[in-house]
Amino acid sequence: MNDRDEIANTLEHALALASEICLRYFRQPLPVDVKPDDTPVTRADREAEAAIRELIGARHPGHAIHGEEHGNTAGAGGTWVIDPIDGTQSFVLGNPLFGCLVGFVRDGVVEAGGLAMPALGETWLATRDAATRRNGEAVHVSGCSVLAEASLLATSPDMFDTAERAAFDAVAARTRYRRFGGDCYAYAMLAGGWSDLVIEAGLKPFDILPLVPIIEQAGGIVSDWGGRPLGLEFDSRVIAAATPELHDEALAVLADSL
Amino acid sequence: MNDRDEIANTLEHALALASEICLRYFRQPLPVDVKPDDTPVTRADREAEAAIRELIGARHPGHAIHGEEHGNTAGAGGTWVIDPIDGTQSFVLGNPLFGCLVGFVRDGVVEAGGLAMPALGETWLATRDAATRRNGEAVHVSGCSVLAEASLLATSPDMFDTAERAAFDAVAARTRYRRFGGDCYAYAMLAGGWSDLVIEAGLKPFDILPLVPIIEQAGGIVSDWGGRPLGLEFDSRVIAAATPELHDEALAVLADSL
Repeated sequence: MNDRDEIANTLEHALALASEICLRYFRQPLPVDVKPDDTPVTRADREAEAAIRELIGARHPGHAIHGEEHGNTAGAGGTWVIDPIDGTQSFVLGNPLFGCLVGFVRDGVVEAGGLAMPALGETWLATRDAATRRNGEAVHVSGCSVLAEASLLATSPDMFDTAERAAFDAVAARTRYRRFGGDCYAYAMLAGGWSDLVIEAGLKPFDILPLVPIIEQAGGIVSDWGGRPLGLEFDSRVIAAATPELHDEALAVLADSL
Repeated sequence: MNDRDEIANTLEHALALASEICLRYFRQPLPVDVKPDDTPVTRADREAEAAIRELIGARHPGHAIHGEEHGNTAGAGGTWVIDPIDGTQSFVLGNPLFGCLVGFVRDGVVEAGGLAMPALGETWLATRDAATRRNGEAVHVSGCSVLAEASLLATSPDMFDTAERAAFDAVAARTRYRRFGGDCYAYAMLAGGWSDLVIEAGLKPFDILPLVPIIEQAGGIVSDWGGRPLGLEFDSRVIAAATPELHDEALAVLADSL
C-alpha cells in the first residue's frame, strides 16, 4: 500500500473500532461526567478515542494526534484529529444522530476524513483523490445557489453567542427552511445533496476538520464566517454550503449582521 | 381475532405500508408543495396516507378517519388518526428522524397507537392491555423525577409563539440538557427511557394522539400544558414526562411563566 492508501485504511479501521464501542454503550445505563468546558463525556467517548489512538500509534508511530478526550500527542509527518463521539448529548439521550469523526491533516490540508454514524449503519469517507463515499457510494451536494431556495441546518440555537445568533437569524430569515439538531450529521446531509447550508459556531477543530474533505470532495464549500479555509487553528465559526454562490450570499449576510 | 387484536393488526399493517412508501421516496428528488398552513407536503405524504386509508376502509368500513393530508371521513365506532409523515421537513432534507403515525381513538381514549421510523428500521406499538414495544421489545420510561436532572426535548424553538417560548425557556433553564430536533421521535426517546421530558406547541391531534399510548404504556405521562388529558380537541400544547413528579414540577414552571 502507498502512504495515501495506508492513511485511508487506518481511518476506516479507526471508525469501525469506534462504532463498535459506541454501539456497546448506546442506550445502556452510563454515567455522564461534565468536563471543565461544561460538555458531557462518558466512558464510551474515552474508550473509543483510546482505541483509535492505539491503532494510530501502532500503524503510524511518528504522527501527531489531537483528540477531544485525551489531548494532544506531539509528532511529525501529519496530525490525526479525533472526535470519538460528536454529539455526546445526543448519544446519552438515545438520539441516533451521533457520529465518530477521524481526520488526517498534513501541511495544513485535511488529506482524509471519515464519519461513522454507528446507530444509522453509515460510514462516510473522503480522500483528496476521489469523490466522497457514503457506504461506498459516491455522493454529491445539491445545486442550490440561492438562499431563498436553501435549507439551513445548525445543531442548536444555544451554540451561538448573542451577536452570532443575530447573524444566524439574519441568514435563516432569507432561507426556505431552517432546522436544528444533527451535530456532525448536518454536514453529511449537505454532502449527500439533501440539505444546502450549515452555519454553526462554538466548534473545535476535531468537530469539523474530519468533515472538510467529506464536504469538499462531494463538491461543497466550507470555511469560517470570514470565508477563510479551516485549519488546526480557527475561530470556532463554520459555514458550509452546496455551491460557491450560496456560500457567497450567506457570507455577505453574516458580514452585514456582525 | 377479537376486535382489539384486529385494531392492532390493522395498525401494524398500516405502518408497514406507509414505511415502504416513505423509503421509496426518501432522499430521491421530490417536489415539495407548501400547504395553506405553510407546512410542506410531498407525494410521499399523500400516497402513504391514501394507502393507509384504503386499508382501514377495507378492514373497518364503518370507522371515522382523521388524516393530515386527506382530511376527515365521518364514521362511527371509533376514529383513526393518521399522520403519514411526521417531520416532513426532516424527510425532505434527508434527515432520518421522520416517522409515520397511526392511532385509534374510541370513546375519547386512544386505544392503540403506532409509530414507524422507516429510515431507522424501528416500529413502536402500544395497546391498552400491554407495555409499549419497540421492534417487539418492551420499553419503559426513565425514573427521572426532578427537573434539575432531566433532559428536555422539543422539535424546534420556532414551534413556539413568544409567550410559549418564554415558558419553555423557563423550564429549560432548570433542566440538565435541552435539545432540539426529533419531531415524533422525541416522544419515542422518552418512552424508551433515554430522555425525560418533551415540551412542544403548535401540534395537531394527528401529530400526538398516536403517541399517547406509546408514552403511557411505557409508564410515562402526557397532557396539555394545563395538565388536562389530550383528545381529538386540544389546544396544541403538549407536555410529556417520565414521571408524575417531573410532570408536576414542569407544569408549575409553565403555569408561573404563562
